[in-house]
Order: sequence, then C-alpha cells, then structure tokens
Amino acid sequence: MNKNTHYQNLQPNYLFKEITDRAVAYTEAHPEHKLLRMGVGDVTRPLPPAIIQAMQKAVAELGQAETFRGYCLEEGYEWLRQAIIDNEYTPKGIDLDIHEVFIGEGAGSDLGNLSELFSSDNKVAILEPTYPAYADASIMAGRPITYLPCHAENGFVPELPKQKADIIYLCFPNNPTGTVLTYAQLKEWVDYARRNGSIIIYDAAYVAYISQPGIPHSIYEIEGAKEVAIEVKSYSKSAGFTSVRCGYTVVPKETGLQAMWLRRQCTKYNGTSYIAQRAALATYTPEGQAGIHANLDVYKATALLIKNGLQTMGYEVYGGDNAPYIWCRSPHGWDSWSFFDHLLRQCQVLCTPGVGFGPSGEGYVRFSAFSKSEDCIEALQRMKEQI
Amino acid sequence: MNKNTHYQNLQPNYLFKEITDRAVAYTEAHPEHKLLRMGVGDVTRPLPPAIIQAMQKAVAELGQAETFRGYCLEEGYEWLRQAIIDNEYTPKGIDLDIHEVFIGEGAGSDLGNLSELFSSDNKVAILEPTYPAYADASIMAGRPITYLPCHAENGFVPELPKQKADIIYLCFPNNPTGTVLTYAQLKEWVDYARRNGSIIIYDAAYVAYISQPGIPHSIYEIEGAKEVAIEVKSYSKSAGFTSVRCGYTVVPKETGLQAMWLRRQCTKYNGTSYIAQRAALATYTPEGQAGIHANLDVYKATALLIKNGLQTMGYEVYGGDNAPYIWCRSPHGWDSWSFFDHLLRQCQVLCTPGVGFGPSGEGYVRFSAFSKSEDCIEALQRMKEQI
Repeated sequence: MNKNTHYQNLQPNYLFKEITDRAVAYTEAHPEHKLLRMGVGDVTRPLPPAIIQAMQKAVAELGQAETFRGYCLEEGYEWLRQAIIDNEYTPKGIDLDIHEVFIGEGAGSDLGNLSELFSSDNKVAILEPTYPAYADASIMAGRPITYLPCHAENGFVPELPKQKADIIYLCFPNNPTGTVLTYAQLKEWVDYARRNGSIIIYDAAYVAYISQPGIPHSIYEIEGAKEVAIEVKSYSKSAGFTSVRCGYTVVPKETGLQAMWLRRQCTKYNGTSYIAQRAALATYTPEGQAGIHANLDVYKATALLIKNGLQTMGYEVYGGDNAPYIWCRSPHGWDSWSFFDHLLRQCQVLCTPGVGFGPSGEGYVRFSAFSKSEDCIEALQRMKEQI
Repeated sequence: MNKNTHYQNLQPNYLFKEITDRAVAYTEAHPEHKLLRMGVGDVTRPLPPAIIQAMQKAVAELGQAETFRGYCLEEGYEWLRQAIIDNEYTPKGIDLDIHEVFIGEGAGSDLGNLSELFSSDNKVAILEPTYPAYADASIMAGRPITYLPCHAENGFVPELPKQKADIIYLCFPNNPTGTVLTYAQLKEWVDYARRNGSIIIYDAAYVAYISQPGIPHSIYEIEGAKEVAIEVKSYSKSAGFTSVRCGYTVVPKETGLQAMWLRRQCTKYNGTSYIAQRAALATYTPEGQAGIHANLDVYKATALLIKNGLQTMGYEVYGGDNAPYIWCRSPHGWDSWSFFDHLLRQCQVLCTPGVGFGPSGEGYVRFSAFSKSEDCIEALQRMKEQI
C-alpha cells in the first residue's frame, strides 16, 4: 500500500497551537491576569429562539413513530434548497435551478471536497494571506500553487495571475484581511476565468457582514460568473451554526461540474442532518431573520468598535467594515509574533499573528469581532494604557 | 481547467431510481393497491426518549449565552471518543488511544474520504456484491479494482485476492448478503494484509445486529489487525441516526495513517454537530442502551420473521441472523429483476434486485428488516398466496 505522498509537502500548521501554548504559558506564570481573547474566529452569541424552536421541533419529530424520518437526499431537502434560492439568489436577480444548490454540513468540507472534481495537474491560484484550507487541499492533491499577495501597498486587491491558473480560490469578504471587492474588481476575475477556462471557487462565508452598499453578496451578481464559479456558503458565521453544521454549495450547470458534484455527494456523502436543515430553514422566517440579524448587528458593531478604537490609538487598520475581522499593522515595524507577544504580556490580549496566514501577513495581526463587546472595550482600554 | 476524468469510468447508478420508477408506474396503474416496501436500507423506528432528551438539552444549551458553544475539535469531543473506547473497545480487550478515534458525521463520508490517504496506483480489492460506494470511490481515484465474488457456492466467503491488493474493503456483517465471518476467517484477511502491506478498510456498520456468539464485533478482535485495519462505524443503523448524522472511524497509530487522517480532517472537516455528539453519548447511558436495544430487537425479530417466512415457503435464503438484510435466491432460475417484477405485480411487494449490487448478485434479491413487522407479515402472506 502506498500512501498519498503529497501529504509530505504539507507544512505543519502550528498557528493556533502556538497561540494556545503561549497563552497557557502566560496564564501559568500569571494566573491572576484575565486573558482577553480577541483573535478567535468562532461565533459566541446564542442561537435565536426561532431557530432553537425549529430544532426542538425537529428533534421531537424524530422521537415519534408518525413523524420519524431517516435519510434525506444527499443534495438536501427541496424545501431548504428552494428557500435558499428564494431568499439568497432570486432577490439579487440570480436565477438558479434547485438542482444547482447542494446542502452540506459546512463550507470546510465542501471547500476541501470540491478539490477532487479536478485532475491533479491543474494549476491553482490562491490569495495570500489566506485561510489555510484551500492551500492544504491543493497540496494534498499534488497541485502547484501560485500565491497572489495581498497587502496594504496593493490595497489588498490581488493581481490577476500572470501564469494561467486553472482553479482560483477567492474569499470575499476576506478572512483575514476583511477586504471586499467591487463589481468591477470581481468582474476582472470572472472575465479572466472565462478567457482561460478556469474555475473560481468562491468562499462567500462572510457576505452577511457586508455593510457597504453596492458590494456584491454573491459571485453570480457578476455577469458570466455562472459559467466559471462555484460558490460556497455556510450558516456558521452568518447564523451562528458552528456547532450545528450546515452550509450549501452552488454548482451552476454552465460550469459543466454540476453532475460530477452530484455524483461525488451521492457516493461520499449520506446527507445533512434533518435538525440542521430545519434550523437553516428557520433562518429564513421573519423571526429567524430578526434573530440572526440581531446577532450580526452586535458582531458588526463590535468590529467597528475594535477598528475605531485601534485607529484612534494610531494603529494602521483595515477590514472591520464588511467583515468580522480587523487586520492591524504591527507598530514600530514589529513582526507579527512580536506584536502578539507585546499584546499578551503587556495587555493580556490575545490576537492572531498575521504571518500564520501567509508571508504577506507578516507584520500584521488579526482581531476578530466575535468576542463580547465588553471584553473588546476592556482590551482596547488596556492597549491604550500601554501606548 | 481539467476535470477528474476518472469520473467518466463510473457506471450510472440507476438501481434505486429504477426501483422507484417501476413502483411509481405500478402505483399509477393500480392506485388501489398498497405497496409494501421490503427493500429499503433505512431505519424506521423513532429515537428512544433518552436520546431525544439529550438532543433537546444540547439544543437548549445553544440558545443560552452561558452554555452556547461553537466549533469543536475536528476529531470530536473527548468525552465521546472516550465513551466509544470504554463501551465499544475496552470490554472486548481492545486497547485504543483517544487519538485513534475520530468522530465524523457518518460512515458514508469517512469511507469515501479515506480514499485520499492513498496514492492512485494502489490496487483495490472489493467483495462483490457490494454497497456501491467503495467501488465508486476507488474509480473516482483512478484505482484498478479486483472484485471478489461472494455467492451461495462459496458460502459468501470471499477468496483472498490472487493478485496483490493494497486496499481491501470488507463489510461484515455484510450488506447485502447478511454474511458474517468467524475469527479464523477474518484472521486470514488480517494475515494477508500483514504479509502484503495492505490496508483493510473495515465497514462495521451492522455489528449491532450480530446474534451468533463468537462472531467478532470489531476487526481489532483479530490479532495483528491494528497494524493493517481502519474500522468505520456509524450510529445510523445501530442507533437509528440516519437523519442525525454521527459515526466514527478508528485509525490505529500502527497503520502509519493516524497522523494523515488527523491532518485530512483538520483541513477538510470542521467537526461534527454538538447535538449529534450528545445524542451519540446518550446511546451509552443505561437508558440509551435500553432504548436502542429495544429498537434493534424489533429489527432483529423482523429479520428472522422474514427469513423464516421465506424459508417456510421454500425460498433459498441467507443472512437475516446477524444482519438486517435477507438475501434471497430468485425462484425458477429467474434473474433479479424478473423476481422483483413478479413480487411487485403479483404481491405488491418491493424488494431490491441483487444484481444492483454487482454481477454475483444476479439471481438474488435483498429484503430489509427495517419495515414494520405488520407490513412484513402481510408481505409474506401475499407471497404465500401467490406460490
């Protein structure tokens, strides 16, 4: 038996382990100090009552013979796929067939698993700094990767690949920089993909955080995108479902990949939890919408609070307006870990060193807007006292 | 962009579509006749109260700030992994480390995704007739497959592969034939794998249905198996979780694959639903055990009812004693679809044509024990009247 030797090319991923180790070491030395965790990419606010009730009802159904149900279709219940089309796409003037929407248990899985629709010789382009999963999936498949640097000097807008890229991973609003692209900027990518027969895998996990008018919420708002783009969405950050597990992937027939994805899911996936699908459907009721928007409004307000607070102190910051992440330049020319250590030791504030997302992240750190606003206010106060 | 061209080698899988089409056509022509579905591989009995309560509690926690939680570790909560070791392995004298147990959302996904730990040049051996997913995953990866026929003439015990097989998919108790292997028979496979450096992927989805004493419930009961076997388990058929979605995969460190599977899951999986993990944990409480065994006892009794009823009528049947499937030879030398059509038209009974599971399934049909026992009794009665 021969192992997949491409795994040997993976870099050990110690970012969050290293953060944890340093935090633990500090806490052991200073148990009296409360650490404020400002870098965690996970939701913290409870699910709204409308969603809890929908889940309780679904659970109760599974306990009664008359209402018990087993396997669903691998692609998900029609009522959820239709609700997604009716709520997320039709209002934007995007016309999708129910067979082009695939319910899954989260973007992490679909982003990884889409990789197998392509042969290993495809060249990949990935923005950098980046959520590591796109790169790792490409390395596991043995595909060569071109990284497209995003930094303050280019306004975090990546240049089109100079070499032909067959598979392009885009994420907007961006984790970790918080960048959004305009229609015109996204159209350059769609046009590039159309010219080159490329596929764009568009991670749209954070579109619920967009506040700026006119910023596209779906790649399919761009003319021609249905030929070249697969869009991956998740209820994790938009509705708080990180422990519920539900998302969906759109594979338009024009990409030529819809039938392959269906076959892949029918072979390697046995469907999404009934409870999770009922929870997702509940997000589209008026009460569900009110509830998730109440939570989103808190996270968005926290993002602005962090951004404005840092700017007031003289930090150079990006993001925060259209994403739950604030990308902050280290002061004094410090590298990412030096700024991390300063914040930990002097302020007992934890952030995420930007270099952990790629070389263009060096000299930046990421703050997340998911922490309680009281903790953010305290963190900013501690940072102010240390200036 | 180049697609994964191995997908072109997949056979269209029309088994369940064809069954549905023929059932629908019959019902349209004879709406007055009630069809009895005796071939469906899905549970039907509601979840026990102890499990429903655990799920309700988990859902309620997600609705309160003090108890809300987000992402879990990709490999699953320690309390569930430990419970699996304490309940499923330690009592059998099998010693596993918590890091060797990986919670997932179902066997279907893990069986498919394990494929990527191996390079594409590995030769695969698969029993036949078979659940199609192992073969399809292998074809998608471009691996050559040797099928090992199982039929009445060899007692449904496959011969060891004559050519060297690098990856061997075994499923015992078997879907669709209901066969179980003894310790000695399984040891031949483990010894083969050890001699040849092969990996056995052991689908143990149905071990909860074993009634015969002395039949192994885990591949790791076999000496040396930890070096060569990955075991895939699911709560779907043992606890009724087909719409809840929870399972686990054991990857012993001795296989040399544990770190790779961990890396794969940390890249392409964001963890299993909290609700599903609490449900799984509840299956190990005394009330949970009582509840799931009550359901299992009904399915097991139904399996015996079907088997004995068919035998009494003179049918040649296999399985049913240690699996929820009964494998029945078509009478009069009929092929599978002819027997299917006869049962549909003359008795309004639906089964699953064995040829849909592979060429060695030709001339057999599969009955499932998940249907209500009243329906089974009626189905057998209708068949008796037609003899």
